Amino acid sequence: MDAARQRWATRAEPPGALGRLEELAVHLAGVTGRCPPPVPDAPAVAVFAGDHGAVDDGASAWPQVVTAAMVETMSAGGAAICVLARGIGASVTVVDVGVASPLGHLANVRHERVRPGTASIARGPAMAVSEAAAAIDAGARIAAELLDDGADCLIGGDMGIGNTTAAAALIGTVCGRPATDVTGPGAGVPAGGPDHKQRLVAAAMRRVEGCADPLELLAGAGGLEIAALAGFYLTAARRRTPFITDGVIACAALCIADLLSPGTAGGAIAGHLSAEPASGLALEHLGLQPLLDLDLRLGEGTGACLAFPLLRAAAATLAGMAALPAHPPTPGVD
Amino acid sequence: MDAARQRWATRAEPPGALGRLEELAVHLAGVTGRCPPPVPDAPAVAVFAGDHGAVDDGASAWPQVVTAAMVETMSAGGAAICVLARGIGASVTVVDVGVASPLGHLANVRHERVRPGTASIARGPAMAVSEAAAAIDAGARIAAELLDDGADCLIGGDMGIGNTTAAAALIGTVCGRPATDVTGPGAGVPAGGPDHKQRLVAAAMRRVEGCADPLELLAGAGGLEIAALAGFYLTAARRRTPFITDGVIACAALCIADLLSPGTAGGAIAGHLSAEPASGLALEHLGLQPLLDLDLRLGEGTGACLAFPLLRAAAATLAGMAALPAHPPTPGVD
Repeated sequence: MDAARQRWATRAEPPGALGRLEELAVHLAGVTGRCPPPVPDAPAVAVFAGDHGAVDDGASAWPQVVTAAMVETMSAGGAAICVLARGIGASVTVVDVGVASPLGHLANVRHERVRPGTASIARGPAMAVSEAAAAIDAGARIAAELLDDGADCLIGGDMGIGNTTAAAALIGTVCGRPATDVTGPGAGVPAGGPDHKQRLVAAAMRRVEGCADPLELLAGAGGLEIAALAGFYLTAARRRTPFITDGVIACAALCIADLLSPGTAGGAIAGHLSAEPASGLALEHLGLQPLLDLDLRLGEGTGACLAFPLLRAAAATLAGMAALPAHPPTPGVD
Repeated sequence: MDAARQRWATRAEPPGALGRLEELAVHLAGVTGRCPPPVPDAPAVAVFAGDHGAVDDGASAWPQVVTAAMVETMSAGGAAICVLARGIGASVTVVDVGVASPLGHLANVRHERVRPGTASIARGPAMAVSEAAAAIDAGARIAAELLDDGADCLIGGDMGIGNTTAAAALIGTVCGRPATDVTGPGAGVPAGGPDHKQRLVAAAMRRVEGCADPLELLAGAGGLEIAALAGFYLTAARRRTPFITDGVIACAALCIADLLSPGTAGGAIAGHLSAEPASGLALEHLGLQPLLDLDLRLGEGTGACLAFPLLRAAAATLAGMAALPAHPPTPGVD
């Protein structure tokens, strides 16, 4: 990172003029241990899909079957994440870690279902601790496979009706914020209104209050796709590969990953600030500043994909810009 | 634009979930008159270079010869803008509209010099009205050539030691803000300190106060590259081609272009919010919201280049995302 800072100081620009792009290149140097850091050119996207029992308690405006329908749309290449991944030359692997509805064989979809959706976190634990661990393992395995196949930047995404409820409960618990601060509309305000969703989040938070074990917290108030994303990030960080977080679901997963292995968040690049309120609270808690703020709230990894060209630009400028002349003009003297 | 909004409403996502990306695609539909708008794949960058007499009065930490040195660096492909333009597949045309120092024949550099730098705006007009008009014409001509050659998105950049002083004076005058609000450090605080730079800006603003003719204002307190950028934007808007603005110099040029031909700013895409304070004031005055906020203050068109992938992503998602199923699930009913 010091070498990267020194290299920036000699490039053909006023010191610091490329602002956060310079910080990003320094970060990439730190993660990869190389200066200039290699320009990432093989990003890989994994979208983890799972359902949420809290939907039966009115957590979302949408029924759980939409999760399966969107997995099918992703398989066919028609989801937003598919279009955006194509735009950056990234592969997309869709992983069923816990969809509730039956799914036939689908192209580009991996079947790693740990259980068919969680139980409602408003009433009891989402899943067993062993199931949370199995979902983490699935995410870690996918990350390892993508890296073994040559990916040099990992992007994780999520699909799961009701998952902003679980993400809010996790982030509220980790950051010590009440349900009123962390609950947003998600994909659409449920029929019971925002207050109802807040009550579901608050009920889950009361149950896991004081829980010191991150795996137990994840099992208590999380989701299968959130667990898989946590495992995905843990492996990316351990393998010293740049990874970009997405919206509020990704932020919840990174909070858990950072509790499981402190320092994991330091390797992350925060792709964007979601419109969901818990996203900004989690990023602040983790000490991360998002690259984009475009009022996105779709998930799937879309915001992370949109941020990827900034990584490429940061690494490319540090590597490709000319040095200042050997005897630069002295500021203030003509 | 209505057709674009209706198309978004039927895509496979919760309504509005792609936030500003949706607005951007609607804007592109409005500019191009097509829905879905074509995905831009032939961006072209023009960097206009000019010098500023106010540098002799201590406007910058750098001497005017740096403008010529950076034109040479751009010609050799080593400037930040060259690296970033390559990253988005854009051509780069460097245009000398008013460099003070002699320039030999340089690859990729167009010689359209109207005069060798401006006179100091702290003491009198920067140039004659006829010279400002000639620089506008040069920028308009370059834009027309790039469009005739097939460019489908125009990015304008600037190079000119001392040009944040002129940009601040123009923006302060157009927006009715004092020199203290619009003056920033630019490429580096001059030897006389920030107060000295503010005094130069204030002196220029006093001279052009009450000036109702935008061409006279430009000649009074502007710069040759600012004038050329204004002409570049006017032609992009007139030819209904998306164009992306860069930092504070670009914002000053767009203010002038919008006065010369009201409505021009409405066709612009604000690439980023510069660290220079006048940038945000100008964008607010013009009713534009920047896409990026990365603490950049380099100019050259760098921030606009970094924003370009968002345009491509916006158009690609609107065109490429699948529609919702014919009978979408009813929100609130499982």
